[in-house]
Order: sequence, then structure tokens, then C-alpha cells
Amino acid sequence: MKLKTGSDLDLERYLRDRRVWIDRTLEDCLPTQRFAPGRLHEAMRYSLFAGGKRIRPILAIAALESIGGDVERALPVVSAIELVHTYSLIHDDLPAMDNDDYRRGRLTSHKKFGEAAAILAGDALLTAAFSLLSDRELNRTIPADILLSVLHEIGQAAGSLGMVGGQFADMESEGSAGSETISEETLFYIHSHKTGALIRAAVRIGALLGKALPDALSSLTVYGEKVGLAFQVADDILDLEGTEKETGKRVRKDGARRKLTYPMGVGLAESKRFADRLIREAQEALSAFGPEADPLRAIARFVVERKV
Amino acid sequence: MKLKTGSDLDLERYLRDRRVWIDRTLEDCLPTQRFAPGRLHEAMRYSLFAGGKRIRPILAIAALESIGGDVERALPVVSAIELVHTYSLIHDDLPAMDNDDYRRGRLTSHKKFGEAAAILAGDALLTAAFSLLSDRELNRTIPADILLSVLHEIGQAAGSLGMVGGQFADMESEGSAGSETISEETLFYIHSHKTGALIRAAVRIGALLGKALPDALSSLTVYGEKVGLAFQVADDILDLEGTEKETGKRVRKDGARRKLTYPMGVGLAESKRFADRLIREAQEALSAFGPEADPLRAIARFVVERKV
Repeated sequence: MKLKTGSDLDLERYLRDRRVWIDRTLEDCLPTQRFAPGRLHEAMRYSLFAGGKRIRPILAIAALESIGGDVERALPVVSAIELVHTYSLIHDDLPAMDNDDYRRGRLTSHKKFGEAAAILAGDALLTAAFSLLSDRELNRTIPADILLSVLHEIGQAAGSLGMVGGQFADMESEGSAGSETISEETLFYIHSHKTGALIRAAVRIGALLGKALPDALSSLTVYGEKVGLAFQVADDILDLEGTEKETGKRVRKDGARRKLTYPMGVGLAESKRFADRLIREAQEALSAFGPEADPLRAIARFVVERKV
Repeated sequence: MKLKTGSDLDLERYLRDRRVWIDRTLEDCLPTQRFAPGRLHEAMRYSLFAGGKRIRPILAIAALESIGGDVERALPVVSAIELVHTYSLIHDDLPAMDNDDYRRGRLTSHKKFGEAAAILAGDALLTAAFSLLSDRELNRTIPADILLSVLHEIGQAAGSLGMVGGQFADMESEGSAGSETISEETLFYIHSHKTGALIRAAVRIGALLGKALPDALSSLTVYGEKVGLAFQVADDILDLEGTEKETGKRVRKDGARRKLTYPMGVGLAESKRFADRLIREAQEALSAFGPEADPLRAIARFVVERKV
């Protein structure tokens, strides 16, 4: 797959290589089933190694590369973002939440291991992320103050003022689509928090690890915000247009639940135009960057063109 | 309430004062309902300010005082332990877990706010703990490497190799009490992890904040382990002997569920002797400490003599 930007970056290969690095790091950092409780570690790994695209850690890597940082020593830190993402998927799928039976073509955690185990596996993955980030031995070449700033970035992005807040608002909005009490503001809040916050944080973490100067950090933050929002809009479009086979999960469920989405609010065509505009703005935010930022530019496009 | 150790420490007042400091810190650090989503922050605060004893942060403070450390600047850090504890209570009470309707005399989170909100409130409290611990502004007088060591201590104690692991094993053991396949080893694993790990960590965090020398850290670790285990044994005894009015929660539920407990395994009298021995051993671990450790000595006794 060649990029449309004129760059000779092979995006498919770029993504595949980094996915392998991240998978290897996660494999090394997480206790195996040989550690008690074996079944808990099995459940954690079942969801973690379910074929995820690792798009958030890869965004962190690409951001770090865009400012010339050293990727290898940053792998444990960026991989921790995937632990947070995976925990959020497990909890979102629970019967009390989205009540999904399938994810990435496989049974969801609670269908496979039971509800209590799924709750605890999610809890343990979130905790493991912070454990990994604060591991001085594993991250010995990264200064303590940078590790703390990364921790704070994830903590803020994943918490009640970020991802969990967005998930909560999303849940509260269920059944209210079409109602006049739900505003575009609410829709924006949900999307920018539920999905956007962690993606924005991933990009910023790459910047923090590379000790980005204030200007570069600002540009990368704008990039992260635009891509994060585009990601959720693309997800909503996929829910409408994708097939179950392609996405590996139940589709057209948003409508069934009268869940608030962009396509539902502004229509499918307008949603696609909106996603395109966000990607263009994300790429424009990188105008001062050289070819080192080509992966970021390409990933922005990939995020809205993906089929899963 | 005077201490039996001959010390003139007024334990009741000691605990009350520190509880006030911790409550004030938590009040300042956690977003109010004015921040969106208001209902999520309401749920987080509902459980956090439900009249908890704050025994874990107080243990951290007492450990810090025992080696002459400055308590005031440590308040945000030690208060974060209570966020982790509160999240664990919310998730433990869920229908898929212990399915409890009351806690501290009030409706549990999921009975009051619904199951999805309770799951998310727990997730958000756990995340808030790590956010608080990595906040450089709030903890500006604490060196970055000490903050990281505290974070790692909590991460390890609360995760799959600690508290969540213990909770998982406890859940797996349900219905198996009396069965010959459950060993004393399993019982010890559950108790030392489910409750013990975070209490041990609380004491160690006080030591880390005070830059304890290796000998003092070892002694305080032994103290924390013994008190942590005694706390759970006392909880099991309370479940058998306490009244619902005293404990504010359903009692005698362990037996109904055939949950594995100490009194069930070795009898009530032997369990009380065991708790007494643990407290004595905890106090002996502090033999090299002066009167600065009197609060720790008194709290050890309080932990097994409490009625709630």
C-alpha cells in the first residue's frame, strides 16, 4: 500500500513492524498464566492479544519519530497505552454497558470468562498500565519526571474528565437520539472524550518522550485531537456501512439502541465530509514537520479509510 | 480511649484528626459535580465520602510519622490510597461479584446509580488515584523518583499479582468451602492479596515518602503484612459475630455463600488467637522504633478490636 502523499512510505509494512514490537513488549511485560491466578492472567491476555491494530501505541511511536526520538527505549511506555485501551473495551462490552457478545470476531471477555472475571481482568489491565509506566527498572533510560508526565497524561485522558467521562455520557445518551434535548455539544463531548482523549494522549506521550519543544507539542496535540475525533466518526460510519464479517463485531447496533452518532445527527454524507476535513486539518497541523512526520500523515488517512 | 500500651496517645483523637485531613484532601483533589459528567462525579463522591475509616491512608501517615517524616506535604499521595480502596469496594459489591445492596449503612453504588455507572465510577476512581499520584504541581515538594516508587508500589499491590488477584481467587473459591480441594495455602493467598496487599503497600508508602533506611523499611513491611492479614481475619470474625447495625452491611453472608474464611477453616476461637498473634508480631516488628511508632502500635490493636 503506497501513500497518496507522494511519500514512499510503505504504511502497511510500517504498521506491521511496529505492531510486532508492541506485541513483543506486551508479551514480555505482562505476567503469563503460570502466575497465580492463572485464569485471571489468561483473561487479561485473551483480550490483549485478540488481534488489535495497536493504533494508539503506534501513534505514540510515530509522534516520537516525527521529532527524532529513540523508539526502542520507549516501547514499554507506549505499550502501556494499549493496556488502558484493552481494559476500556472489556468494560464497555459488559452486559451492564454495551452488552456485546463479540469483539474482533471472538467472544467478548465476559462471554468467555464470565462477568466477574471480565470486570477484574479490566481492572487488572488498567492497573498493569500504571505499574508498567512506573517501573524504573524497565524504563531506566527515561528520566523520572518524563515518566511522571506520561503517567499524568494517561491518568487525565483515561479518567472521569476524559475517556470514562465520555463513556458515561455516551451511556446516558442512549435512547435519547432524536430527542431535542441532546445537543451537538453533547455529541462532541462524547466523541472527543470517549475515543478522542486517549488518542490525543497517545500522540502527546510520543511528544513528551521525545522532549518536544512547545511549538511541536502544540502541533502534535492538534494533530492528536483531530485524528481522535476522526477515529470516532469513522467508527460510527463503519457501524452503519461495515459488515459484521469485516469489523468482527455486531454492526448497526447504534441505531437499534438509538445511540447518538454523527451519521445519525448530520447524515452519512456529511459525516464523511467531516471526517475528511478532520484528517486534512490533522495533516495541516504538521506543516512545519519534515518527512519524519510522513507516518503520522499517513496514519491520519488510514484511520478514516480502515475497514475494521 | 486510652492505649493499653502505657503510651498516653489518644488513639480516637489521633484517628479523627487524620481522617479530617484526608477527607479535606480528597475533597480538594476530586472534581465536584459541577464538572461534566456531573452524575459520574456524584457517584464517585457518593462512595468516597460514605464514612470510611480511612485506615489505609492513616497507616501510611503513621508509618511516615514513625520515621520522622513530614505529613502535610504527603497528604495527596496517601489520600490516593483511599481512591484505590474505594474503587475496589464499588466493584466488589457489583451483582456479578458479591452482589451487595448495602455498604456502610447506605445503598451500594450500583443500587443507587445503576450498574453501568458503578462500574465506571470505580474505573474513574482507580484512574484518579494514578492521576493524583503523578500530579507534579500538587506534589511539588516530593521528588519525582519517590513519586514513581509510590506509584509502582500501589500498582503492584492493587493489580493481578495483588488485590485484584486476591479478589479473583476469592471469587473462584466461592462455593468450595469445606471441599477438600481448597488448601490453607489458598486461604492464605486470598487473604494476603485481597486485603493484605494494599494495607502492606500503605505502610510501605509511608516509609518510602520518609526515605526510610533499609532496616526500617523491612520492619515496616513486616508490620504491614501482619496488620494486613489480621485485618482480613478480623473482617471474617466480624462477619460471623457482628450485627448488621454495627457493620452497616449484610453479615453472615460468607457462610451463606460457602465462601472460604478463617473462622470456617480453623474455628472462631482459633481465628481470634491467630489475629492476636499477628498483632503481637506486628508490634514486635517495631521493637527498634521509639514512641514515634506508638500510633502504629495502637492501630494494630485497633484493627482487630474494631466493631465495623
